[in-house]
Amino acid sequence: MKTGVIGATGYAGVELVRLLTEHPNVDGLELSSVSYEGVRIEDVYPNLFKKVSAELKKADAVIETADVVFSSLPHGVGEVFAKACIECDKPFIDLSADFRFGNDEATFSLWYGKSYQYPELHGLSVYGLPELNRQTMKAKNGKVIVGNPGCYPTAVILGAMPALAKGLAGTGTIIVDAASGITGGGRDPTRAYHFPECADAMSPYKVGCHRHTPEIACNFAAIAGRAMPLVFTPHLAPMNRGILATIYIPLVDVLPSKEITVKTAEIHALYTEFYKDEPFIRVLPLGSVAVTNRVRQSNFCDISIHLDQTGSTLIVISVIDNMVKGAAGQAIQNMNIVCGFAEDAGLSAVPSLF
Amino acid sequence: MKTGVIGATGYAGVELVRLLTEHPNVDGLELSSVSYEGVRIEDVYPNLFKKVSAELKKADAVIETADVVFSSLPHGVGEVFAKACIECDKPFIDLSADFRFGNDEATFSLWYGKSYQYPELHGLSVYGLPELNRQTMKAKNGKVIVGNPGCYPTAVILGAMPALAKGLAGTGTIIVDAASGITGGGRDPTRAYHFPECADAMSPYKVGCHRHTPEIACNFAAIAGRAMPLVFTPHLAPMNRGILATIYIPLVDVLPSKEITVKTAEIHALYTEFYKDEPFIRVLPLGSVAVTNRVRQSNFCDISIHLDQTGSTLIVISVIDNMVKGAAGQAIQNMNIVCGFAEDAGLSAVPSLF
Amino acid sequence: MKTGVIGATGYAGVELVRLLTEHPNVDGLELSSVSYEGVRIEDVYPNLFKKVSAELKKADAVIETADVVFSSLPHGVGEVFAKACIECDKPFIDLSADFRFGNDEATFSLWYGKSYQYPELHGLSVYGLPELNRQTMKAKNGKVIVGNPGCYPTAVILGAMPALAKGLAGTGTIIVDAASGITGGGRDPTRAYHFPECADAMSPYKVGCHRHTPEIACNFAAIAGRAMPLVFTPHLAPMNRGILATIYIPLVDVLPSKEITVKTAEIHALYTEFYKDEPFIRVLPLGSVAVTNRVRQSNFCDISIHLDQTGSTLIVISVIDNMVKGAAGQAIQNMNIVCGFAEDAGLSAVPSLF
Amino acid sequence: MKTGVIGATGYAGVELVRLLTEHPNVDGLELSSVSYEGVRIEDVYPNLFKKVSAELKKADAVIETADVVFSSLPHGVGEVFAKACIECDKPFIDLSADFRFGNDEATFSLWYGKSYQYPELHGLSVYGLPELNRQTMKAKNGKVIVGNPGCYPTAVILGAMPALAKGLAGTGTIIVDAASGITGGGRDPTRAYHFPECADAMSPYKVGCHRHTPEIACNFAAIAGRAMPLVFTPHLAPMNRGILATIYIPLVDVLPSKEITVKTAEIHALYTEFYKDEPFIRVLPLGSVAVTNRVRQSNFCDISIHLDQTGSTLIVISVIDNMVKGAAGQAIQNMNIVCGFAEDAGLSAVPSLF
Repeated sequence: MKTGVIGATGYAGVELVRLLTEHPNVDGLELSSVSYEGVRIEDVYPNLFKKVSAELKKADAVIETADVVFSSLPHGVGEVFAKACIECDKPFIDLSADFRFGNDEATFSLWYGKSYQYPELHGLSVYGLPELNRQTMKAKNGKVIVGNPGCYPTAVILGAMPALAKGLAGTGTIIVDAASGITGGGRDPTRAYHFPECADAMSPYKVGCHRHTPEIACNFAAIAGRAMPLVFTPHLAPMNRGILATIYIPLVDVLPSKEITVKTAEIHALYTEFYKDEPFIRVLPLGSVAVTNRVRQSNFCDISIHLDQTGSTLIVISVIDNMVKGAAGQAIQNMNIVCGFAEDAGLSAVPSLF
Repeated sequence: MKTGVIGATGYAGVELVRLLTEHPNVDGLELSSVSYEGVRIEDVYPNLFKKVSAELKKADAVIETADVVFSSLPHGVGEVFAKACIECDKPFIDLSADFRFGNDEATFSLWYGKSYQYPELHGLSVYGLPELNRQTMKAKNGKVIVGNPGCYPTAVILGAMPALAKGLAGTGTIIVDAASGITGGGRDPTRAYHFPECADAMSPYKVGCHRHTPEIACNFAAIAGRAMPLVFTPHLAPMNRGILATIYIPLVDVLPSKEITVKTAEIHALYTEFYKDEPFIRVLPLGSVAVTNRVRQSNFCDISIHLDQTGSTLIVISVIDNMVKGAAGQAIQNMNIVCGFAEDAGLSAVPSLF
Repeated sequence: MKTGVIGATGYAGVELVRLLTEHPNVDGLELSSVSYEGVRIEDVYPNLFKKVSAELKKADAVIETADVVFSSLPHGVGEVFAKACIECDKPFIDLSADFRFGNDEATFSLWYGKSYQYPELHGLSVYGLPELNRQTMKAKNGKVIVGNPGCYPTAVILGAMPALAKGLAGTGTIIVDAASGITGGGRDPTRAYHFPECADAMSPYKVGCHRHTPEIACNFAAIAGRAMPLVFTPHLAPMNRGILATIYIPLVDVLPSKEITVKTAEIHALYTEFYKDEPFIRVLPLGSVAVTNRVRQSNFCDISIHLDQTGSTLIVISVIDNMVKGAAGQAIQNMNIVCGFAEDAGLSAVPSLF
Repeated sequence: MKTGVIGATGYAGVELVRLLTEHPNVDGLELSSVSYEGVRIEDVYPNLFKKVSAELKKADAVIETADVVFSSLPHGVGEVFAKACIECDKPFIDLSADFRFGNDEATFSLWYGKSYQYPELHGLSVYGLPELNRQTMKAKNGKVIVGNPGCYPTAVILGAMPALAKGLAGTGTIIVDAASGITGGGRDPTRAYHFPECADAMSPYKVGCHRHTPEIACNFAAIAGRAMPLVFTPHLAPMNRGILATIYIPLVDVLPSKEITVKTAEIHALYTEFYKDEPFIRVLPLGSVAVTNRVRQSNFCDISIHLDQTGSTLIVISVIDNMVKGAAGQAIQNMNIVCGFAEDAGLSAVPSLF
């Protein structure tokens, strides 16, 4: 099968290239780039030298040749390519936010400042979190636009889903405090990602108003069956890869202190059961804490379960590699689902501690 | 004046040495160390070579010679030195947790697993957060034991104090999510602080059960006049210096969205007014976000004010240098207060961005 | 085929585990550890959870079951296991220095302070640098002890080999200045690798007297056909992975400035030709500079060619991932050669820029 | 005294601002910036908030008001300001390369691609390495242009000077292999300094052809009394501050191995004696190795002395903080000399290990 990547020279794009190169069901890569059209990908990314060799073409040429198309473009410019793919029955997997909100154009417009160009396309789209929408994606039989989730929402929704689905959450506000490695900011050099300004520093940003908030909130509501008050604050951490989400979920009932150990074990059992068939979710043993470097370079999401010492709040730690499960790896997992491959094809890397 | 440092070879101890060396009112340093007794400090810390030269002695010898004594020992072993100082009317400034709880031995024992050896001493102690207890410290006229605050509590209490003191907080749980640089773990090499295991990684620890929780809670209650439900989770960040605390305070009333901008400005004005005379608190201009590297190597606490987009939650970002305002710098600030020096003597360093 | 790893819980050992898990010709792993006997590897390294599951046994049990045995023990303790393997015709691939010096026990003893326990074994050993000794390894028909090269020697010998083999080097001293990521120091926490002491710092060590000096020198002599004066200085760099070697080779003749461009191209062509069939050597295009992060997580050695502006000195930059080509990856490459597998089996990872 | 900084918003400029703020002989700062004219420095650098407050003006306004002027502009644009200062008898301390070559315009032009605009000014200039030219600077009686040395040349010349001055070096090539923290690349974000591309990586650059080569070579020749063949290669290291130079000096005679210890001690004694009155040079005790983090935030240059095990090569490790002794600190040291202040005024910071 031939795969295409539109926008192959961004960090998520080239991570797709890196992972697809070793994918057992992929035997050809077609790549496009606006900025580097006509250049070879290995000249843009010398780490690919002698492993990947491909000329960067126009997006149209990629769509024409490929059997499935990934799009890793900025928000708001990829709908036209989605349309072209749908018209020739090719799955379109979009790493931007354009297809993460289905028919809810109002929310998309409010947060991204753009309208839908082809509203009818969005009815064909599925929010590509396999653990939530695997069956829906399969049911599309290949005529599908996958809105690949954002990096933070992936970690956060996976971390909260069992608790929300099983009714553990009370009526209070869910607080999500998260940190990302700096690759999350993309390849363009700016002062915020200039080494001397972000090394040896923690920087909150978009405090209480990040655009991943509505993406998380929509899915929380869908899972819980009701709107869940949510506050989300991301931070930039001085590391390359990784998302860590610390999720504070108010419990329905505050527990007496002596029941905390028992209750923690119950919730842990509930999470373990909930995810028991998931290939990429690891609910850690009780007493372990999820840390970002234990999922490095892999498609895993590690989750650890904790109760605070007053018994009022469930604290879930959820970690992913932002470039893999948070972007390119999850997109490939979605391709595997949509194309009928083994869901972990090309994604079997053992996490590298360092 | 001669100052003494008991436990001078730990990271907080040697930071005291570094800062006291340049202090205008200090003209002698007496240092002790159990592990390195008889060795010279500049042989333990070669960065001090040609700047500081002192033999490491016994604690008793330090107390005998010094006019004011800092103690940077592990928890639970320093009371005997406090007693010796009090008996000869020398201020004792303790960087351990031993004197942070006043007469509340129950709380100390519950979290630190030890009893008070000399309960009567604790009535003489003051929790050394100058912004909270400056007058109390001054009133002791030098016969004082200062319980220097923990690093996290310093950032957290300073970040929340105006909101709690002015009644902005509702009845919900205050969530504190914090991150520390790795110097916070001290000088002893362990796996958690081994470079390959903590570089390029974010690690939560003591989730919901860290020993700084009761220290924060006690002071929250004192400031607010009632118990405040609190959940506190610290994280290890791959940097040397810095504490970042992201503090989520539920507001008394949820605001309509349109009032958020006005309300944010009101709260910002309240904070600015509250801290207007403080030499080391910088309430940042509206729209700025506090980041750890802008207080590096200084005694400042930077605070930024935010409301989440639903108007339910006040989000305060509070940052300090964990080794300065979070340890040695604040201890020196306390010495300045207790000894009647200018409060910023020896603490005037301009923050170094990198 | 079943592979065994003796000393599986060190960093090189667990990197073997990580890579062998995905190796297409390997269908079983037997692991040993003295420190963790009876424990499961995934409990020692939680990053392996749900991917690798194996009890840590005694070395003897591993040798009995495995078809090929890797040993990742400290220097001077593995000969007995080599002997056991040779006696039952199982290839033994040793990542320590014990079998890097063949019959030259004098050099080994001088630098490592130990004698050979079974001198006769060393005649069976091959220095496992495939680019130098591939045919010798093959000719052993499986009855072989492979002395897997040190991390620095791998980068240095590969960088200098074409120049030495082709007689470009004059009679002066070859200077090798190198830097290593901190994983090279192993898993045991010590002050030198304590995050606060090595982050944001460059540290030379074993200046002019590192134990990899004789390993490099022996191979330089073998390649050049004469002793080559050598000075080697390693440095610790604040990064997890990577070796960078900057190799200064005095040329036979000093060139006139105007010929530098031409001469550089000639030497570049010579290197390119020399390594044209090597699967893991990438001689970079003229004008490119080898950097460590472009070989990350891969078995590649990148080499770039430069002449200084006076034309007297060939400067070769050679970089590898110290844990892959510098340790576990090269060991697997050697296994592939010895066992007749495709030489890049299990080693096809595309380098990850970050 | 009032000091002026032209080009105050670059990293070297703002480091001058940070250090001058605490200088005991300075009571006013006048700052200029082309890019930020009319803006306040504390709005460009929020770390200065509440410590430094100054409007960024035109360079002319700074020269008019200040008693001594620092210039931290790009190469080739500052001569006009030097001229203005000389005409009104104000010392001009230039951190660019413009005045580092005295009357040797040919070398400057060859490497920097520009001619001297006012050749007569260069006769008034002194290369501002105090350890070499302190008396020359003093003799100018304030009518002086100081060409503040480059960061690499500072570390390298200080490391080699005693050996060259005392005739230890033979006729071979001196190899200098150096590494710099990333602040050395300045404030402008570019891909080379983009966090994800330089974190966890070592990158050589300008291999054998960096512009600091002639600056080093000119001074080597002046010190040794003859041209010294030199090869210089810099590397970018993933840290904020610090220059490490590893300097390989071929000795006049190769020593027998048994004399190495004695000879090392002799050379160490020679270095110690040579620098015995220097306030900012620390020749480390024999057996110690200079590392960058032990001079952090200070104006020290640490030097350690080693011989390679064959006795052919003197290896000197020389480290500085690139922003202090390598830029702003040394400029202030030069101001102190030129203005007759204590040479260490404003430069007494104890190095901070982390």
